[in-house]
Amino acid sequence: MLTETELEQRVFRLQGMLRNKRVHAALLILPIDVYYFAGTRQNAILWIPTDGQPVLLVRKSLSRATEESSIVDIRPFPSSKEFSSFFSEDQVCIGMTFDAVPVQQHSYYTRALPGRSFVDISMIVREVMSVKSPFELEQLRYSASKLASVFAEVPQFLKAGMRELDVSADMEYRLRKAGHEGYVRMRAFNQELFFGLAVSSGGVNGGFFDGPVTGKGLSSASPHGASYDDIQVNQPILLDFSGVFNGYIADMTRMFVIGKLDPELQRAFNVAIDIQEMVRQAMKPGAICEELFLAAAAMAEKAGLDSWFMGMPGEQAKFVGHGVGLELDQLPVLAKGFVTPLQANQVIAVEPKFVIPGKGVIGIENTFVVTDEGGLRLSDFPDGIVFL
Amino acid sequence: MLTETELEQRVFRLQGMLRNKRVHAALLILPIDVYYFAGTRQNAILWIPTDGQPVLLVRKSLSRATEESSIVDIRPFPSSKEFSSFFSEDQVCIGMTFDAVPVQQHSYYTRALPGRSFVDISMIVREVMSVKSPFELEQLRYSASKLASVFAEVPQFLKAGMRELDVSADMEYRLRKAGHEGYVRMRAFNQELFFGLAVSSGGVNGGFFDGPVTGKGLSSASPHGASYDDIQVNQPILLDFSGVFNGYIADMTRMFVIGKLDPELQRAFNVAIDIQEMVRQAMKPGAICEELFLAAAAMAEKAGLDSWFMGMPGEQAKFVGHGVGLELDQLPVLAKGFVTPLQANQVIAVEPKFVIPGKGVIGIENTFVVTDEGGLRLSDFPDGIVFL
Repeated sequence: MLTETELEQRVFRLQGMLRNKRVHAALLILPIDVYYFAGTRQNAILWIPTDGQPVLLVRKSLSRATEESSIVDIRPFPSSKEFSSFFSEDQVCIGMTFDAVPVQQHSYYTRALPGRSFVDISMIVREVMSVKSPFELEQLRYSASKLASVFAEVPQFLKAGMRELDVSADMEYRLRKAGHEGYVRMRAFNQELFFGLAVSSGGVNGGFFDGPVTGKGLSSASPHGASYDDIQVNQPILLDFSGVFNGYIADMTRMFVIGKLDPELQRAFNVAIDIQEMVRQAMKPGAICEELFLAAAAMAEKAGLDSWFMGMPGEQAKFVGHGVGLELDQLPVLAKGFVTPLQANQVIAVEPKFVIPGKGVIGIENTFVVTDEGGLRLSDFPDGIVFL
Repeated sequence: MLTETELEQRVFRLQGMLRNKRVHAALLILPIDVYYFAGTRQNAILWIPTDGQPVLLVRKSLSRATEESSIVDIRPFPSSKEFSSFFSEDQVCIGMTFDAVPVQQHSYYTRALPGRSFVDISMIVREVMSVKSPFELEQLRYSASKLASVFAEVPQFLKAGMRELDVSADMEYRLRKAGHEGYVRMRAFNQELFFGLAVSSGGVNGGFFDGPVTGKGLSSASPHGASYDDIQVNQPILLDFSGVFNGYIADMTRMFVIGKLDPELQRAFNVAIDIQEMVRQAMKPGAICEELFLAAAAMAEKAGLDSWFMGMPGEQAKFVGHGVGLELDQLPVLAKGFVTPLQANQVIAVEPKFVIPGKGVIGIENTFVVTDEGGLRLSDFPDGIVFL
């Protein structure tokens, strides 16, 4: 259970930002927003006045929400008629996270709370969630260490002739037995991910997934991740998996090869390691997100690898790192267009990768905490390609 | 790949319903809506004029969308400036699926297409998707048979002393190796599910999940499904799993007991079987959804089991069956308030269940096709409790 103090601090930070934007209250209805500020992922909404105490309104299960949450004021969900009288008349400007709230939900609440104006506070909520508390860093370290312990087992089961799907299933099984919660939450509207990616020959493939590597997947309905293709000798095998424990997500990629690796892929891997180290050193409070991406892209260009950096030629991702926490795609993003400075205790998965048509996918990924000394790794599992 | 004819028929049915509602075009942006009408789940949106040919606009991956979709007119996603000139001025009333489209996306398209009115076509799209074609029924039969084949393996691994999590992991591993795509799509805003539920003692538990059984889960961040609790002898063990193959979802529940079963649970199980058979016989075109639920509830009441029917006392689900297809929660719903008639070739998972505090969870679930002869089972795996 999240402590009352932890939740109070989160609410306090949000209230400060709402006040700056002259928003009178936040009406949070996205489950993960509610979980972050209330400590329960029941079917509930959370009302946070900019000046006042939060109120949790629970559809189901009230008993469980009461058990799980430190919020003092927890009530059953009101009828739509009761709704308006329930909140203060002074609270005129209401914030919701428009990035994820469906139009029908928004309409319901605008009707239930007449006379109010509704504004988008997605970026405020996402910024608050991006800076981790000591408790959250501990959770993320736990997720990263559990994830790393399963990566350590890969040499026990990875063999030529397995399908990518079999490799993925073995990773998933071991992660699950270790307590992985399965569902990987993503915030972006049209993204979805199952556990991670186990890709070899299927890796050189375009796809909807907003990452450098997408994989071929099992069908056009599920067109990313592992495919039915066999694992071959002398091919790069990329394993990119999430570790989700107590809701917190660590993200990690390692390379495996059965036999020998093409020298060009080895060279690209070395450049990826150099880019990761450059980014790690630069991950200090105040560093500008976009500049880290541009510096990474410049290193890829200098190495003559720019047309393969972060994706298939023509489908290259425009980032080199993404925030992680309760969602796989949190702020900050080390990407073009993000001119915001890093803040201490943001947590970022840095993943320089190359997709070389005719050869394969290669790269590295680790999750780092932003500190005054640069990025601090969440787990110290070795980066090197594992040759089997 | 979905045939051109199959997609044309889907688009044709939608266009008929749009015409009836005087909507000039559908702008579909939810991935599963796009997949259903275009046969590709890339990052793309689909414009379907009520009179005219659909246009698929692709953000990523264009090459893959072109490979996967039979839509003739496929183009790269236009800039927001190009957007308006791209479509006819006569198309004034535009439909979107407001149940799932986030406010930010809606705002983007209202700005990109000025002078248009936007209306909610969620129920229209969901109704079209609820009636399955012969191709889709074949897909669903395949999913159901794959799912049943894994249920048949349960006696090989289910043992006392395993954690619910271990049982779940073993089911998931076998399903995955059989080609299960992992991600279980749900349409409802605040729902999420990972594979299914393996619950025994942890089954008697409230929860956010909109189903009769939720399970305890692994943490307050993931409060449903399997828990760390041990499987005990003489306890009901409920396995409720999805089978997702080529995007199509079958849903199935079976009961297992190591040892003996409490007679009251056995009696409740027999009532569940009777309810399932009553519903099955009544599942003909024209039958009213709500009436099937009320008849099921009446049977539970007659058996003196009404306060345990479909969930924890006080948290009972108000349905006895739900549509399945590309999503786990499609139309129709056999629930109070749904006064619509069933249509031939709708596919419904019927799941009468009881949650008896202090004793456990028990019930049955099979997926049926609505036909003139009543519900036709998608797979013929035996219903009986498996005693080990």
